[in-house]
Amino acid sequence: MEKQNLRPIFWEGEVLRLLDQRLIPGKKEWFLASNAQDVIFAIREMIVRGAPAIAITGLFGAVLELKKVGSKPSYAEFESLLFRILESRPTAVNLRTALEELKSLFPPQSYDSLSFSEMKNKAEEFAVATYEEDIRNNLSLAEHGLSLFSKKDRKLRILTHCNTGALATAGHGTALGVIRSLHKAGFDLTVYADETRPYLQGARLTAWELKEEGIESYLITDSMAGWVMATQKIDAVIVGVDRVAANGDSANKIGTYPLAIVAKYHGVPFYIAATEKSFDFRIPSGKEIPIEMRNQDEVTRFSFLKKTDGTPVLEEGMIAPVDVKALNPSFDVTPADLIAAFITERGIVKPQDIRSVFG
Amino acid sequence: MEKQNLRPIFWEGEVLRLLDQRLIPGKKEWFLASNAQDVIFAIREMIVRGAPAIAITGLFGAVLELKKVGSKPSYAEFESLLFRILESRPTAVNLRTALEELKSLFPPQSYDSLSFSEMKNKAEEFAVATYEEDIRNNLSLAEHGLSLFSKKDRKLRILTHCNTGALATAGHGTALGVIRSLHKAGFDLTVYADETRPYLQGARLTAWELKEEGIESYLITDSMAGWVMATQKIDAVIVGVDRVAANGDSANKIGTYPLAIVAKYHGVPFYIAATEKSFDFRIPSGKEIPIEMRNQDEVTRFSFLKKTDGTPVLEEGMIAPVDVKALNPSFDVTPADLIAAFITERGIVKPQDIRSVFG
Repeated sequence: MEKQNLRPIFWEGEVLRLLDQRLIPGKKEWFLASNAQDVIFAIREMIVRGAPAIAITGLFGAVLELKKVGSKPSYAEFESLLFRILESRPTAVNLRTALEELKSLFPPQSYDSLSFSEMKNKAEEFAVATYEEDIRNNLSLAEHGLSLFSKKDRKLRILTHCNTGALATAGHGTALGVIRSLHKAGFDLTVYADETRPYLQGARLTAWELKEEGIESYLITDSMAGWVMATQKIDAVIVGVDRVAANGDSANKIGTYPLAIVAKYHGVPFYIAATEKSFDFRIPSGKEIPIEMRNQDEVTRFSFLKKTDGTPVLEEGMIAPVDVKALNPSFDVTPADLIAAFITERGIVKPQDIRSVFG
Repeated sequence: MEKQNLRPIFWEGEVLRLLDQRLIPGKKEWFLASNAQDVIFAIREMIVRGAPAIAITGLFGAVLELKKVGSKPSYAEFESLLFRILESRPTAVNLRTALEELKSLFPPQSYDSLSFSEMKNKAEEFAVATYEEDIRNNLSLAEHGLSLFSKKDRKLRILTHCNTGALATAGHGTALGVIRSLHKAGFDLTVYADETRPYLQGARLTAWELKEEGIESYLITDSMAGWVMATQKIDAVIVGVDRVAANGDSANKIGTYPLAIVAKYHGVPFYIAATEKSFDFRIPSGKEIPIEMRNQDEVTRFSFLKKTDGTPVLEEGMIAPVDVKALNPSFDVTPADLIAAFITERGIVKPQDIRSVFG
């Protein structure tokens, strides 16, 4: 079972407790969200991140808001609440799907006949079920991931990008969930973790999770992946995903696409770990996936933890000239032909088969 | 002509004045070296960096030491001095070549017949000539680079890595020298500059040089090069080089190799700007080029400038768990078949022709 300290989201009925991931690995502090606005803030400010974790957080945001308002909102107000939450991270398909599923529980034609307390109960039950389903799916996905590897009398070397661990989900993780399960199954593992500029999810979060699990690992800059593949006998690259289009093209954290190209060049299989919620068949191909452009300060500055008399504080350092222009696309798109397979809760699925399995 | 403020090295007879590149872009401070030990420190601590600049600095380090000691060193002492300087950056072929050329000015059989003052004069003249030749070669190299591009009625978009500018050389620069000359020749240029983790030469130095020259540019993280090539119509990648083996394989700043793979995938020509001093025909191929592994703190920490009541000070921030293991190879090797051509002071040279031109 997952260690309790690697759960980033706790639902406590009137409040959602979120591990403040901006402060990891320096300190473990909880952010308490008690309404939709708190949850929107937490998503925008990256207190919570990772597509599955964001979706669950968004659902609980709706539940918190319903519990907080004195009377049942009109259908239009309910729709507007969900829309406000969705806008906190417009590119995350998991969040959109989760909010649409929540909305579909309350069809407009029967909306007025439902009592407010029934509505609140139903919404909360759905959020809790989604949370539990995410952990279940991750464990099942990871189990299928094991089938890709056989125990050899040498190390298994895996390279990963960004953070796709317990911290990115309700628990266990997707790509890092596979790695976690490989370790638990007794594989002799070495993991190479990209630091994942600009936001450093790899350096701050993945390196921390790997250390907590006792998995042998090396932190590398994103630019070192070529050297690592050329010299370190990498068996596989496993990453997570933000959104998979109908043709298998996959949007994920910036840096995933060049990593897939470099893996192809070295003949290293490139796997994407994804649950059903990441597949978006309404989007025909990667070209139609919108890419969020974030603030350029993430590129020109670094956030880090500075220890001042024992208490770490979040500080920022400037690393480029003051008035330099920077680009900050959050995601890039990896074309389906660079993806060896998707590791999913329903098994290992080739890009050309995703529609028959999940469509 | 080159602006005076973009010269990183000034020879003043009894002292070598080096622009402290650790503090750029925050402040311009000069480090004064007055003996070999100072110069070794400056190279090790990256006060001066860039293969051509290091070679010139190393030569002046030998001259300073000769001027400082009271009497003529024995031949063995002279050899040991050169060896100590070489050890400050063992992978830099320019430094080795420069020191070997210096050594060859004083053959052992005639060493004792040379007066100490003749020796000092000869060494100083050679260092000054090497300095001046570097600027001349860079200007000539850049002129040849212009021939690769034609002025079109649209922007010319170039992606570069690390810093190969005036700061990396005696002046003007190699890859960034080509970019500087394109700008001066009236090309409508946009430059995408990789930040170049871990040491951030792109963010700190290249972004600064481009801004000083008024060249339109965007800073990107190394992981964004795939997205940039897929979406921004890049015309060429131009980088510098640390050492070229006899077969054309080229060792350069970590991240160059995956960039070359990604350029190939997109059909973007990948050029290396290099002067004769970077070609090392004693090394048959990239496999034999030693790769310097630097301290892992460069990966787990960030150096940055913090402004405290007006005076910026160099601080460090931790961005990974305290006891994480990191890898820090300084260079990677780009195989010759990914290189469209070398841009050199003798013209544009294909990898298969380097031996006939420079051998």
